[in-house]
Amino acid sequence: MTKNNAVYVGKKNVMSYVLAVVTLFNKGEGSVQIMSRGRSISKAVDIAEITRNRFMPEVKVSDITIGTEEMTTKEGTKTNVSIIEITLTK
Amino acid sequence: MTKNNAVYVGKKNVMSYVLAVVTLFNKGEGSVQIMSRGRSISKAVDIAEITRNRFMPEVKVSDITIGTEEMTTKEGTKTNVSIIEITLTK
Repeated sequence: MTKNNAVYVGKKNVMSYVLAVVTLFNKGEGSVQIMSRGRSISKAVDIAEITRNRFMPEVKVSDITIGTEEMTTKEGTKTNVSIIEITLTK
Repeated sequence: MTKNNAVYVGKKNVMSYVLAVVTLFNKGEGSVQIMSRGRSISKAVDIAEITRNRFMPEVKVSDITIGTEEMTTKEGTKTNVSIIEITLTK
């Protein structure tokens, strides 16, 4: 499930994830995936845009995929959540 | 700026926009664009996914574009906001 070149977006601030993306590219990754779901999807777009506009203008958005995943809540009921995967390529 | 086949996502609930998308397709549009920015980006993805999964399985996501726009706040300062455009095609 987890990939070496992926950044999973959670509750930290946007710049923490931008730094994670930049670090992966600087370690030699040719592409980095930003994976996010639910309310954090907006944050994934911010991370991609800030990485490109402020830090790595040579990086392009090579792919964006959206989808739906089934989640089980703490109470045991099932619910659907939207996901996004943004692939940045140098 | 405004297009006939576009749905601009704001503060209404997700189902209002899903209904707007379905209505445009039913009026004969071959493709519909869901346009959103800032915190509403997650909602745009929900709208696309719910339209496809629950109402119109024949509709595909044909394009997703992300970008940055400069906005002027009420106080007159400039700030950047992320945008997304999701194109659904029948």
